Amino acid sequence: MKKREFKYDIMPEIKSRWSPRAISEKKLSDTDINAILEAASFAPSCFNEQPWRFILAKDTAALEKMRTLLTPSNQLWAGKAPLLIMVLSVKSFEHNGKDNFWNIFDAGTSWGYMSLEAERRGIITHAMGGFNKMKAREAYNISDEYNVISVIAAGYYGNPEELPHDLQEREYPACRKSVEELIIK
Amino acid sequence: MKKREFKYDIMPEIKSRWSPRAISEKKLSDTDINAILEAASFAPSCFNEQPWRFILAKDTAALEKMRTLLTPSNQLWAGKAPLLIMVLSVKSFEHNGKDNFWNIFDAGTSWGYMSLEAERRGIITHAMGGFNKMKAREAYNISDEYNVISVIAAGYYGNPEELPHDLQEREYPACRKSVEELIIK
Repeated sequence: MKKREFKYDIMPEIKSRWSPRAISEKKLSDTDINAILEAASFAPSCFNEQPWRFILAKDTAALEKMRTLLTPSNQLWAGKAPLLIMVLSVKSFEHNGKDNFWNIFDAGTSWGYMSLEAERRGIITHAMGGFNKMKAREAYNISDEYNVISVIAAGYYGNPEELPHDLQEREYPACRKSVEELIIK
Repeated sequence: MKKREFKYDIMPEIKSRWSPRAISEKKLSDTDINAILEAASFAPSCFNEQPWRFILAKDTAALEKMRTLLTPSNQLWAGKAPLLIMVLSVKSFEHNGKDNFWNIFDAGTSWGYMSLEAERRGIITHAMGGFNKMKAREAYNISDEYNVISVIAAGYYGNPEELPHDLQEREYPACRKSVEELIIK
């Protein structure tokens, strides 16, 4: 396993955060849940439109409803999460009704802020693309005015030995491309 | 002017960060520039694809080239910025060549991480949608494999009194919707 390397003194939460799968069933406090949502709400956005929207699942019935939308391979580990958050975004600008090209981009920024506030509170987060968007639209009656983007699993870190063997082998912070690889000249 | 209100003890950088227009011409160090890019590089992404890409403008000729792509109203204030960063994203997955639905979302997360590391270093950032994307593609020979998303102005805070009068009136941290308004039931 290759270890993450940092050349610069960057924010501790950015350095330490990763996307584990070993999530404990232990419940999160409402204060923690509201705080990570407040952090998400303070992301910048085009025309300050704040196009991000969230569907929360934290009690048993709501968790079961959202969990069934996940792919079987995500249910294997995220099925234990005490909090699932579906991320949506409003496709058009509220101020003029035109298409907002940046709606998904801004929702990504909001998720970024949420993820770092969670890390700061010792809460792990793992965003999933693997869920049935069509069924999600039906289950929550989500109109075409919204993009359905991601489901985030959140909770305290659990016991990696309870993961299926192949997921145990992937249970470490993934490396990143070097900054040089990201720059287009 | 309505002031931002925080109900929870969230990350200081999230609370203090906003998108000013009064940018000083003072140059940023290469260490600071590389550190905010390293922070951006550690954002999570679907399949760890890291679809975000950046075009940097920091010397006189490069800044002039990117500046001319901005709308006249953005040039008024961002024209002074010592650093402009164009944010792009790779549309398809490297691992299988299929469309990556999350490429713009993930680029937004990366920009979020960058913005908070900048704030931590006393550097202001302001993302702009107002620039000519077609001309940007021509100027930098950007193929259709990439989305061209945003141009970020970054620098130290300058003198708001040098802004045009109408921009001076908007030079304060914008408020946000309450968390309750973001939750879809």
